[in-house]
Amino acid sequence: MVVRKVDLRSDTVTKPTEAMRAAMANAEVDDDVLGADPTACRFEAEIARITGKEAALFVPSGTMGNLISVLVHCEIRGSEVILGDISHIHVYENGGISTIGHVHSRTVKNNSDGTMDISLIEAAIRDPKGELFYPTTRLICLENTHANSGGRCISVEYTDRVGELAKKHGLKLHIDGARIFNASTALGVPVSRLVQAADSVSVCLSKGLGAPIGSVIVGSKSFIAKAKRLRKTLGGGMRQIGILCAAAYVALHENVGKLEGDHKKAKVLAEGLNQIKELRVDVSSVETNIIFFHVLEGSEVIVEKLTQFLEKHGILVMPVSSSGIRLVLHHQISESDVQYTLSCIQQAVRLHVGSAGN
Amino acid sequence: MVVRKVDLRSDTVTKPTEAMRAAMANAEVDDDVLGADPTACRFEAEIARITGKEAALFVPSGTMGNLISVLVHCEIRGSEVILGDISHIHVYENGGISTIGHVHSRTVKNNSDGTMDISLIEAAIRDPKGELFYPTTRLICLENTHANSGGRCISVEYTDRVGELAKKHGLKLHIDGARIFNASTALGVPVSRLVQAADSVSVCLSKGLGAPIGSVIVGSKSFIAKAKRLRKTLGGGMRQIGILCAAAYVALHENVGKLEGDHKKAKVLAEGLNQIKELRVDVSSVETNIIFFHVLEGSEVIVEKLTQFLEKHGILVMPVSSSGIRLVLHHQISESDVQYTLSCIQQAVRLHVGSAGN
Amino acid sequence: MVVRKVDLRSDTVTKPTEAMRAAMANAEVDDDVLGADPTACRFEAEIARITGKEAALFVPSGTMGNLISVLVHCEIRGSEVILGDISHIHVYENGGISTIGHVHSRTVKNNSDGTMDISLIEAAIRDPKGELFYPTTRLICLENTHANSGGRCISVEYTDRVGELAKKHGLKLHIDGARIFNASTALGVPVSRLVQAADSVSVCLSKGLGAPIGSVIVGSKSFIAKAKRLRKTLGGGMRQIGILCAAAYVALHENVGKLEGDHKKAKVLAEGLNQIKELRVDVSSVETNIIFFHVLEGSEVIVEKLTQFLEKHGILVMPVSSSGIRLVLHHQISESDVQYTLSCIQQAVRLHVGSAGN
Amino acid sequence: MVVRKVDLRSDTVTKPTEAMRAAMANAEVDDDVLGADPTACRFEAEIARITGKEAALFVPSGTMGNLISVLVHCEIRGSEVILGDISHIHVYENGGISTIGHVHSRTVKNNSDGTMDISLIEAAIRDPKGELFYPTTRLICLENTHANSGGRCISVEYTDRVGELAKKHGLKLHIDGARIFNASTALGVPVSRLVQAADSVSVCLSKGLGAPIGSVIVGSKSFIAKAKRLRKTLGGGMRQIGILCAAAYVALHENVGKLEGDHKKAKVLAEGLNQIKELRVDVSSVETNIIFFHVLEGSEVIVEKLTQFLEKHGILVMPVSSSGIRLVLHHQISESDVQYTLSCIQQAVRLHVGSAGN
Repeated sequence: MVVRKVDLRSDTVTKPTEAMRAAMANAEVDDDVLGADPTACRFEAEIARITGKEAALFVPSGTMGNLISVLVHCEIRGSEVILGDISHIHVYENGGISTIGHVHSRTVKNNSDGTMDISLIEAAIRDPKGELFYPTTRLICLENTHANSGGRCISVEYTDRVGELAKKHGLKLHIDGARIFNASTALGVPVSRLVQAADSVSVCLSKGLGAPIGSVIVGSKSFIAKAKRLRKTLGGGMRQIGILCAAAYVALHENVGKLEGDHKKAKVLAEGLNQIKELRVDVSSVETNIIFFHVLEGSEVIVEKLTQFLEKHGILVMPVSSSGIRLVLHHQISESDVQYTLSCIQQAVRLHVGSAGN
Repeated sequence: MVVRKVDLRSDTVTKPTEAMRAAMANAEVDDDVLGADPTACRFEAEIARITGKEAALFVPSGTMGNLISVLVHCEIRGSEVILGDISHIHVYENGGISTIGHVHSRTVKNNSDGTMDISLIEAAIRDPKGELFYPTTRLICLENTHANSGGRCISVEYTDRVGELAKKHGLKLHIDGARIFNASTALGVPVSRLVQAADSVSVCLSKGLGAPIGSVIVGSKSFIAKAKRLRKTLGGGMRQIGILCAAAYVALHENVGKLEGDHKKAKVLAEGLNQIKELRVDVSSVETNIIFFHVLEGSEVIVEKLTQFLEKHGILVMPVSSSGIRLVLHHQISESDVQYTLSCIQQAVRLHVGSAGN
Repeated sequence: MVVRKVDLRSDTVTKPTEAMRAAMANAEVDDDVLGADPTACRFEAEIARITGKEAALFVPSGTMGNLISVLVHCEIRGSEVILGDISHIHVYENGGISTIGHVHSRTVKNNSDGTMDISLIEAAIRDPKGELFYPTTRLICLENTHANSGGRCISVEYTDRVGELAKKHGLKLHIDGARIFNASTALGVPVSRLVQAADSVSVCLSKGLGAPIGSVIVGSKSFIAKAKRLRKTLGGGMRQIGILCAAAYVALHENVGKLEGDHKKAKVLAEGLNQIKELRVDVSSVETNIIFFHVLEGSEVIVEKLTQFLEKHGILVMPVSSSGIRLVLHHQISESDVQYTLSCIQQAVRLHVGSAGN
Repeated sequence: MVVRKVDLRSDTVTKPTEAMRAAMANAEVDDDVLGADPTACRFEAEIARITGKEAALFVPSGTMGNLISVLVHCEIRGSEVILGDISHIHVYENGGISTIGHVHSRTVKNNSDGTMDISLIEAAIRDPKGELFYPTTRLICLENTHANSGGRCISVEYTDRVGELAKKHGLKLHIDGARIFNASTALGVPVSRLVQAADSVSVCLSKGLGAPIGSVIVGSKSFIAKAKRLRKTLGGGMRQIGILCAAAYVALHENVGKLEGDHKKAKVLAEGLNQIKELRVDVSSVETNIIFFHVLEGSEVIVEKLTQFLEKHGILVMPVSSSGIRLVLHHQISESDVQYTLSCIQQAVRLHVGSAGN
């Protein structure tokens, strides 16, 4: 008997659809390092159009997209970037902007909605008069949706205000838009409007959009020219990338529309979990496709055992602490998968509670 | 008429005493890069003895002392250091550990007494299981006294606990002990006991101790061997440093005893300032030679004008924000200077308040 | 009328075959960052077996393969690598090992056959006694075949001797084996034997082997574990890479056997070019699939115009200097393409010589 | 009985004169980090005047002077510097420009007179059209006198030509002028004329000039402003540096005139050594104060034993290879010391030759 598989660890687990596979098999390609791959050109033009920026560049991963963006804006030795203390760049990208890129990090506390107080950002900007002691602030980074806050959306208004602050101080603004299409969908605002204030955006193609590989960064032509060079330095210059861009092109046109469904399924799952009395989900904070649920203090449920129980039933989840688990919805999770997951978790909780003390 | 000069900007402004000048003029020296300068050897042995460490190395500045220490402990690419969010290393040293040293910074909130909550430090240590996404935590930094907290002393008990935490996780502990002799004096604990848990300490010779130039780092023999090499790489290898070490030797034996007096004068000054109703000083937090005073909200006193007024009267102070000023006491500030400063500030406040609206 | 296209700029221009496209369309995949993609695992195991190393890692490009390898071997700050003065790493990889990786480069003259004199390599190794002034030599890099020398093969004997030298001095040996299968084919020696002395090898899949994207690095398990982490830091960690590994797997089994034919076509082309009296090719040095030909001094042939003429006739070549052009053969160049190229070049030379003075 | 001491290892071993010691003891000083030390200002103005540059900055060492200069000119990530393959920066400064500064090194062969062929320098400059593969050339470094070539002088004409080449390609020119006063003296050309084409120069104060500590860099005001900031980052910002600048000021006015005598003594010593038939000195290449002498092949003289013999007689020399020794003259070596050295070496050679086989 084949066990049903429900992979909720991340939306990065999405597998290429039949349409993507066909597109890859038939893609017109050329050497993208020596000249330009025609399918890559078409894709990059399309994503630049959608995001409202001059130019775009396909990169192997979101980590490289963020790394290149930060390093282009901070190309002069002695630069500092202001970013959220639980932002993806700061927490999950190996500290690469410092250890590989020599950029100094200055963190500002992320609020529970993924924003940082504007006043705190402004206070973190270094006074140029103190340049003998200070690095030079050159960049502010936002993240939208903000993963560690549970996929919360950053509004146009907030983004614009940070953009104005950046301009006032001569800084650049980068948005880690790994899930910007989720934010756009949830907020009902076009991506181009959402990132209007940004000098650069990285967008992930292999998360909710479901492409097998790749991210893309967008910005001005001069930004992308520098980014292209840095992509080569980092080893991200690849050859017949039309293969991957063909799949990404399908993703853009086939899967963006599915994100709304992902958000609905997340809501259903969150509400279901919240009705299990040993668990807690802040349902109102589930704005997109990410759910963090916590085992209530005093409960006998143990995250590690719960995770193992689910795995035996074909459900993969991501424990994030001794009391918390992350679930991420995507287009390859059906409504029925959601119900199956809920019932497995209910069963696990009942069993665990019953077996406590064993 | 010569205006009296009272320089309270920092204890780095101390000028060499006659005894130091004589020592410099008579120092026995040799090329410390090619072999070893005899006076440097003697000084380094003495400071190693006093701090209870195996070996010591004279360096041009406290910034280099901290930079070398962090870089030796974080010699492997991909390292992260945990340090206070308002620590001197993080705020005032140009971000050099990242921009020159490729080390990633992870800050923990400094409490008002200069400590960081042990639980927060522990939470900041990266889980080795997440190594695919995380840099490797290799070092914790403390600062004693903690300058940005107003020269507060870090206790032996706290330091020992952080040392145990570091050991438990296989990390190193560095103490930025720029003013460790002030802490030792105020706490009544020998320096060697205070830094017992530390793998390395940097000590400033040109602050309260009054030497014209230099800091020193101490640690194990193998730490100092690596530090010596890195000192050369950074350009801190100097030739006949016996000149400077001779002055530092005098500083150790002549000026450590004066620190207690500096602390008393600071207390007097702080209490005097706190009696001016437009100003506020947390007198109980003045544990050593540093005072931060603030202009009360609603007051008409303007920090910039106050600073200028004092400068005209020969008193140099360090404005640190739109409402705050830092004063640092040292052995070349007399009790009479303290009274003169108090009376000038009183006068300035009265004048400013009177002239408001002009 | 469609102009015939003969792309001789590089073997990186090879396009995926039908078999590769089918393999990509049908590949079993999973998230290679979160766990392991099954097709990637199979491919990596296969290439490890072929090269005789413990483990392998798929990377987006040869540049990243070399960058990661150098950085893993030189993970401690203050490292130096010895490499050829016209090696690909030194000349064509953006200086990334220094500008991104902080490794110091020490070059040794490449002989015309791509080797470096063993005595010069040994002389370049830093004496540990001079460590106060010197970086630490940690790595020697070879390149096989050696591109800038015209695709010359580095012998087993030479490689073994460099390996012994490295071992004697406690250094590592990395081989940039972008075209190691060409060397293996030309020398009639299994790849595993050819790289036996190496601690790591990078192998390009998207050159003569014809895969659309990717390189692979091989080495010990501990080397690959560190490489995997660094791949993530650089942004080379990708998701459903089974797509790309499926194509690479086909390349390994379908195209290695075609390399011999590429070498024969190169020989034919080289000999043909050498018979044009205005041009010169060192035919004996054409050991694999790369040809450098030079316009003789005094000739009226101008490289730029020749390149343009050929481009009009659908032939793409790579000018490398004011008098030199590089041609690279691959499995998508037929014998007929070779003859067509020869006749176009003959025609161009005749025309140019005739038109001189215009 | 006190053994006479003749330290010929380097001119860095010079000890401060009485006049310098007095100057240090009486120097007017202030905190050079917080504001400006008056003695430092005076000294920096004087050296700027002498070298014909806008501004100057005192630094702890020549290594830091070169490091800062290279890093200021190469402040943008992805920079490359062209420098001599046996230049001091490349060989003896720990590779710091890469390992600390992230600059890629591209070496050009140094001729025996310390120059590099202009055509080779030009060939090493990266073509901006290849920017996808190349780092950006931003700087050329010369060294005058050129230590590893035996203290040879680089002429005005040559320097000017390199300066023109740099300008033509939009590059900067830095001169490592550790011993530029020796070159000026030997060539009979003012320092200001000798470095006219340079954008920056580092000058050593603690070599032939005899100051105990320090170097100075000179250049445009904007160069020095950036240098000052970087000096702080590296930890080279020191406090009451008037102490050291006072000695350096004396060095400038007291010791420059003595360099001619050093050169004469070097000539005498070189000629004397060359008359010992087991040894060889290229006397004509001894243009300043440095001598390299070699033990002839086939001779029974062993460098290590010769060095030990001399040390027992109070003469310190610097072995540089298994057959070569470096001697450096300076103002604290008398004519009598030269004769003593010659006679000790003669004696050593006779003894060693006699004892061969033992």
